[in-house]
Amino acid sequence: MRTVDWVGGVVRMIDQRALPWSFETVDLGTVEEVAEAITNMTVRGAPAIGVSAAFGMALAGFTSAARSPEGIRADLAMAANMLKNARPTAVNLAWAVDTMLTLADQHDYRTADEFRHALIDAARSMADADVEICKAMGRHGRELISDGMTVLHHCNTGALAAVDYGTALGVIRAAHEAGTRFHVFLDETRPRLQGARLSAWELEQQGISYDILPDTAAGFFMQRGEVQLVLVGADRVAANGDFANKIGTYQLAVLAKENRIPFYTVAPTSTVDLSLASGSEIPIEERSPDEVTHPYGNKLVPDHFRARNPAFDVTPARYVSGIVTEHGIARPPFTESLQKAVAGQLL
Amino acid sequence: MRTVDWVGGVVRMIDQRALPWSFETVDLGTVEEVAEAITNMTVRGAPAIGVSAAFGMALAGFTSAARSPEGIRADLAMAANMLKNARPTAVNLAWAVDTMLTLADQHDYRTADEFRHALIDAARSMADADVEICKAMGRHGRELISDGMTVLHHCNTGALAAVDYGTALGVIRAAHEAGTRFHVFLDETRPRLQGARLSAWELEQQGISYDILPDTAAGFFMQRGEVQLVLVGADRVAANGDFANKIGTYQLAVLAKENRIPFYTVAPTSTVDLSLASGSEIPIEERSPDEVTHPYGNKLVPDHFRARNPAFDVTPARYVSGIVTEHGIARPPFTESLQKAVAGQLL
Repeated sequence: MRTVDWVGGVVRMIDQRALPWSFETVDLGTVEEVAEAITNMTVRGAPAIGVSAAFGMALAGFTSAARSPEGIRADLAMAANMLKNARPTAVNLAWAVDTMLTLADQHDYRTADEFRHALIDAARSMADADVEICKAMGRHGRELISDGMTVLHHCNTGALAAVDYGTALGVIRAAHEAGTRFHVFLDETRPRLQGARLSAWELEQQGISYDILPDTAAGFFMQRGEVQLVLVGADRVAANGDFANKIGTYQLAVLAKENRIPFYTVAPTSTVDLSLASGSEIPIEERSPDEVTHPYGNKLVPDHFRARNPAFDVTPARYVSGIVTEHGIARPPFTESLQKAVAGQLL
Repeated sequence: MRTVDWVGGVVRMIDQRALPWSFETVDLGTVEEVAEAITNMTVRGAPAIGVSAAFGMALAGFTSAARSPEGIRADLAMAANMLKNARPTAVNLAWAVDTMLTLADQHDYRTADEFRHALIDAARSMADADVEICKAMGRHGRELISDGMTVLHHCNTGALAAVDYGTALGVIRAAHEAGTRFHVFLDETRPRLQGARLSAWELEQQGISYDILPDTAAGFFMQRGEVQLVLVGADRVAANGDFANKIGTYQLAVLAKENRIPFYTVAPTSTVDLSLASGSEIPIEERSPDEVTHPYGNKLVPDHFRARNPAFDVTPARYVSGIVTEHGIARPPFTESLQKAVAGQLL
């Protein structure tokens, strides 16, 4: 099943908060519910929240009481605002919403229903394209992995972080499917433990050899020469190659450089934001300290203990060996290679 | 109350596994129980387990059925072996046991009871000395902290990690008591969360401003210029200044260097092991993966998910700005300054 899909007039999502304990889905019938599902991380992962937002736009059209295309356009404008504000860091959200708005503006729909169907078709096409993009990144990226390697991975970037297949974990899956034999270290990725809960769950299903690491142990294994490659995802890539990703990514990049280990991010071009010159312009979300102190109802410390919870950090491009996109691997200088990647001219 | 003490023929310890939820103590009546309390981390922290082992040796004498000093010596030899094997990395354990054995060898006790009392007195003296040593490190180290700073700290190095007062957190306490106003970031320190559970509990009691950080967020705040000093403890310092400490310390050291932030370890000379030329010779304990997957009964992931759990890492001396000892701050080149520190000739 896909992470997010359009099923009979509702947006159906895997509830990622219930994994790895139970596989549950939720059906969302309003755009408000879709926005809330993005905010509360029922769905997470930059490509997945992008496509979820596209389905949210389709849902806004589908549930609109308007009788004319103009009326639907007004409802879409409100939905776009709500969805874009659901989370700030991943650019895929804004990209997907803007793509749907462009579609709405570019065509002259005769009836409200024709408009509604076009929106649903467009969101479905975006979902289909996301799967193909992930598979293309897998084909390009799998060459980075060879027999006997151990690959260190952060957070979850698998099928659950996209519509299906995944970005960095998609590369790992592609290498596995190509017959390469390797091991994966999965950073547990505090505070929300996406590595331990979601990535381990995915690799269990795929039969890929792995160990979960506490986030404190990544440097230990790099220092001992037991890691040959670091693969992570991205939530927004600036024009110069700086990129935002799950908190803890920057640390891995510094440690990889210090230990001379190749460090790659795997990101579709929908994650590239050429409007930002550098990563310092990327907004960083800070979430509730409860995620640190009481993850998933586990009371690790008393309620009144204080904590900070930045959800992302920015890795400067100078630490990045390459960026695996659906059009090939962008390499330094990224200011040039990313422009080519976005234009589909990298290869 | 002290972390560990001799009370009416038993070794009384604070049960650190119960904190921060409840303050409980355990009374241990046999050397086997003391060794087990060290292994299962009822007591932890290099100075605290050193003094616990000394009390374990006193208990071995106290509970010995021998009627002669020679008989007690035989029981002490067995106890020494058991205690030294309780945990491998912190040298304080072996140091304390050897100190007790030297005492046993150097004196010619007339009766078994005289020997028993000497052992108890020696362990008590070691505990008293530990408190004074921590206070001396606090006096030397507090100069590193000035008004307006934010200090990043890893694991627990407070009163609970020693007999009282603490090592790195002792320096923080000394600066606070001297009237310096500063903030502390406490790495939560997965997997066992000593930072979130024990250090936060101590700073709450002392009224020192703090926030718990997920271990993934330390680099984020360093990169943003929000950390001015990193203070950690040590479990064993080699002759060249390389040192073992709680897993995650090495990462902080690399990040501190990359961001030009002073990085100090605070360690009594009982933690210095001049017999080791470098940190590569320090044995690193790997503990049960259950501590990662099910910390304190919190089931974070299913039982069959795999994990690794190295308990310590080694920070090369080149990342270390200085080592705060009870005799002053040792600075590079450590091969010289640590010898002076151990000889009490640093100042």
